[in-house]
Amino acid sequence: MQAVHNIAEICARHGITDVVLSPGSRSAPLTLAFARHPGLKVRVVPDERAAAFIGLGIAQAQRRAVALVCTSGTAGLNYAPAVAEAFFQRIPLVVFTADRPPEWIDQLDGQTIRQRNLYGAHAKGEFEFPVDTTHADAKWHAARIVNEAINLAQAAPAGPVQVNVPLREPFYPKAGEEIQYEQDVKITLEATPEPVLPTIEAAAFLGEIEAAKKVLVVAGQHPANPEVQATLVAFATAVGAVVVGDTIANLLPLGDLVIGQQDVFLAGMTKEAREELRPDLLITYGQSLISKSLKLFLRDAAPAAHWHILAHGEAADTFRSLTRVIRVEPAGFFHQLSVLKTGEGITTGGSNPPFSANQPTSTERGLSSNSVGSADAQGHTGSSPSGPTVTWQQANAAAVEFLMKFFAAETQPFNEFSAFRQVLTTLPFYAALHLANSMAVRYANILGLPKDREIEVFANRGTSGIDGCTSTAVGAALAQPERPVVLLTGDVAFFYDRNAFWHNYPTPHLRVVLFNNHGGGIFRLIDGPRQQPELEEFFETRQLLTAENTAKDFNLRYFPVSSFKELQAALPVFFAAETGAAILEVFTDSKTNAAFFEEYRSAVKAAFS
Amino acid sequence: MQAVHNIAEICARHGITDVVLSPGSRSAPLTLAFARHPGLKVRVVPDERAAAFIGLGIAQAQRRAVALVCTSGTAGLNYAPAVAEAFFQRIPLVVFTADRPPEWIDQLDGQTIRQRNLYGAHAKGEFEFPVDTTHADAKWHAARIVNEAINLAQAAPAGPVQVNVPLREPFYPKAGEEIQYEQDVKITLEATPEPVLPTIEAAAFLGEIEAAKKVLVVAGQHPANPEVQATLVAFATAVGAVVVGDTIANLLPLGDLVIGQQDVFLAGMTKEAREELRPDLLITYGQSLISKSLKLFLRDAAPAAHWHILAHGEAADTFRSLTRVIRVEPAGFFHQLSVLKTGEGITTGGSNPPFSANQPTSTERGLSSNSVGSADAQGHTGSSPSGPTVTWQQANAAAVEFLMKFFAAETQPFNEFSAFRQVLTTLPFYAALHLANSMAVRYANILGLPKDREIEVFANRGTSGIDGCTSTAVGAALAQPERPVVLLTGDVAFFYDRNAFWHNYPTPHLRVVLFNNHGGGIFRLIDGPRQQPELEEFFETRQLLTAENTAKDFNLRYFPVSSFKELQAALPVFFAAETGAAILEVFTDSKTNAAFFEEYRSAVKAAFS
Repeated sequence: MQAVHNIAEICARHGITDVVLSPGSRSAPLTLAFARHPGLKVRVVPDERAAAFIGLGIAQAQRRAVALVCTSGTAGLNYAPAVAEAFFQRIPLVVFTADRPPEWIDQLDGQTIRQRNLYGAHAKGEFEFPVDTTHADAKWHAARIVNEAINLAQAAPAGPVQVNVPLREPFYPKAGEEIQYEQDVKITLEATPEPVLPTIEAAAFLGEIEAAKKVLVVAGQHPANPEVQATLVAFATAVGAVVVGDTIANLLPLGDLVIGQQDVFLAGMTKEAREELRPDLLITYGQSLISKSLKLFLRDAAPAAHWHILAHGEAADTFRSLTRVIRVEPAGFFHQLSVLKTGEGITTGGSNPPFSANQPTSTERGLSSNSVGSADAQGHTGSSPSGPTVTWQQANAAAVEFLMKFFAAETQPFNEFSAFRQVLTTLPFYAALHLANSMAVRYANILGLPKDREIEVFANRGTSGIDGCTSTAVGAALAQPERPVVLLTGDVAFFYDRNAFWHNYPTPHLRVVLFNNHGGGIFRLIDGPRQQPELEEFFETRQLLTAENTAKDFNLRYFPVSSFKELQAALPVFFAAETGAAILEVFTDSKTNAAFFEEYRSAVKAAFS
Repeated sequence: MQAVHNIAEICARHGITDVVLSPGSRSAPLTLAFARHPGLKVRVVPDERAAAFIGLGIAQAQRRAVALVCTSGTAGLNYAPAVAEAFFQRIPLVVFTADRPPEWIDQLDGQTIRQRNLYGAHAKGEFEFPVDTTHADAKWHAARIVNEAINLAQAAPAGPVQVNVPLREPFYPKAGEEIQYEQDVKITLEATPEPVLPTIEAAAFLGEIEAAKKVLVVAGQHPANPEVQATLVAFATAVGAVVVGDTIANLLPLGDLVIGQQDVFLAGMTKEAREELRPDLLITYGQSLISKSLKLFLRDAAPAAHWHILAHGEAADTFRSLTRVIRVEPAGFFHQLSVLKTGEGITTGGSNPPFSANQPTSTERGLSSNSVGSADAQGHTGSSPSGPTVTWQQANAAAVEFLMKFFAAETQPFNEFSAFRQVLTTLPFYAALHLANSMAVRYANILGLPKDREIEVFANRGTSGIDGCTSTAVGAALAQPERPVVLLTGDVAFFYDRNAFWHNYPTPHLRVVLFNNHGGGIFRLIDGPRQQPELEEFFETRQLLTAENTAKDFNLRYFPVSSFKELQAALPVFFAAETGAAILEVFTDSKTNAAFFEEYRSAVKAAFS
């Protein structure tokens, strides 16, 4: 078993610190190797579906690979949803699946399935640990593939890998026997320096940017990154580009420099009005967008050029207009081009004089924090911003104003959209905010988040599943025990994944706000299903649970609220540090929610069309 | 969407009656097609992991294919554990996974993963529904592959298939619009007649059987089947074979004609004593065994010949001694050979005269219900059956006697092994008994089940997972609403899968007996983990839940018991028909359980070695 014990050592030497394992007998040698390693923090979670999402949450919070360990059989299949999420969200997971030795596969032994390549197209790679490591070559092979697997998981784009570990009995050391970790075990580290754009190419790109009349930067899902934020501002200011970002782009610290209310104004504007906003050059970076309005707008708008900045991995043609993929990191790109532009002379001066000369200044193009104010000053506040002068900033400012007025109405019934907004205003400072699929993340994107609180936003938008949103937040709370972790979720996602809490580790700063409308409320908000007689049984799926018993089961403080008043009273206590892990359950009626949301949509149309 | 609507019609015309679907938007056209079809019973279960196991439970109970329908993204990945169980347990499932159209895969759209061949080696086949069915050829293609998929799922060995259905918007018909099912849709049925052994070959096999001194038939997991039961008795009687069957072989109606206590006596006997029981010819049919003692015995015993009777699919070499696979159905084989034997003259008389002449008669070999009585008469009751005359019947009878005496001891503390036995004695008539992994199915196999009550036994022994045992039982209760469905389970399996109850369909005759020792008690019963300092945290996984809140959540009557007296008092009320769906939670202490089980093991060794 020495080669198996060394797996833990190799993981630790590659910088892995956290391991999530689920109990099993076949996996015992792995369990012992990891549990006894002094450099590893090992946590046990019995439901493998939750375990894998908890591992993903830890990896996401710590920004380094997490190891998962499970026994043979369907245990590893329960990892599959989280593995797929990790694959598309580019989060490194090293999945160790214990297995029967190859000779016993398909021989009707218990907990035996076909574990080779268990995750198919959703793992970056799959490795088979040698079953017999007595030969020196096999020992080298064993250590080598663990190194390879970890390096592959961490290499950009990061993602999940599987190491299948067939194990023969006996699994257990004798009572009192110690495990040795070989200090001279083979370690192969991998350095992957960032690709750098040759200056001449950068200059050519800058030329094209300067030649474009309207440059729009759209940020997709991206972890919070001060370097990206700073260089993006420098770049956008230098070239006069407008920056649009969904909440999951994590650009909150840039405040009004970033357009964030596109879900409001784009949904309301007519096609003609939106034409004003159409970019000549679209530059994107990051992963997916939440805003369907923004996606549809960009698909309709079809910019002449669309560049996607992506150092590694497959580039998506999200708007059907992709013309160029630039294989560098976004921060590097923005920095290099802003230096080129503002450093003057560095640009290949005069290569494109007519276009350069015709460029509007940054202020004319509208990128400055003042533009929001000026939009306000021009009176585009809630009234229809139209005419040839409409800018992204004006529209955004109008949307902010519109929301403020719309929600200020005193006649509104208690509904989840308004309650959601109320919760957002009280989010704690430095919160890791987890937005569950599917309505929570959408509401947040419409309403916008407080920009002054260093809030970092997480959402499982790799696959947009509801299956592990709670577990991911629990993983975050385990990884950063001092940080407030707030999960905003709906009842279907919450009950789907309540085994997230089924373990013995405290998460004192975890707060779950559960918007319970007793069903998949989203279906009542969409025209198609709403009009079908099958709505309640087959789409909305009326479900009767409340979180009261779940809170009891897992020793979570429980705050049920059914009115604005109760909500307002509960929020400060709920978010107070001394409260401990807690659930705030916001009960609303799905018909009322649908009617109110419809009212919102009508108001948007009236205000922006 | 006509081609999509026709899917429901084709399913119905192939005899599918039950559909389990999970809500989603992408899957809406499938949902509507199935929900509105007059010939299909459609149920909605939000957690796809539970949904798929519920579908499996329905298919298992009804012995016909069930259709599953889910939306795009990780929804289908949550089916994977049940799909693997169906694959190895040979249960037909037709899995329809809605998908984005191919042009939008990997384009950062929501709920989009790589759904082709989602179940890898655990599906019998995978079909891609055409995304555009306007061309006549595509329409033919669409209908054809649905037929092919259903036929493949049902063809022996039955199993799961995936039909991936990419769908473009719009998903919903207009309000009030009706769905048409084309009555002239293409239907291709498949007839698969049973293979028949040529008489000359059967005669040759009979010759070999007659030449063998000791013939042992071992039955693996098999659905209850009166034809198999009857022909097996006729065969064993005719050739003087001993029949051994675990509880999951469903041979209970054969009573003492079948050896069932092998888990007791084989575990206790010395290698020398077991040598007496070693067969010359081993004949097996069915799937896996529970009894590890039996497996180890047969692997050690290495019969000169081992035949496996299996009409279709891969044959396992479970005991490392497989010499012949006979490709017929077990009932056909047993019938043909018993007719050959008892019909005299049909056998190729004299081909093996010395061996035939030397055959002991059936009575000598011991197969008769009287042999149990005679063993008793010989005094091998609890005392060590040894010497050259030990037979399977004697050992079995001794084991039955041993268990009776062992559990009669009045000093035993309350423990789950004894409590389990008490529950078994009160099982209702005609119960569908679901035995969860891992301890419940083992306890039942050691203790034996009542033979006089037409009990049918189910267990997810295809993969031996704990992930869907409850859902499978719930599926059975939905499929046969008038039949008592009893699930015996442990706390880890129970809480793992409690979303089994998260739906809106009544199961009035479902009874769950939950043996709660607050952890994976099995690990304390195994020598290896018991001796490790990591036992409690990393193997046993202490967990604190009780089912009280779960029972409240799902409106199940709840009976907690902590003593023999409470258990005895609760059982009649719990099993009474008017009680409705209920949980009986049996609280025991894992250390007491381990000590008692150790006592049992010592007693077995003392009695049988």
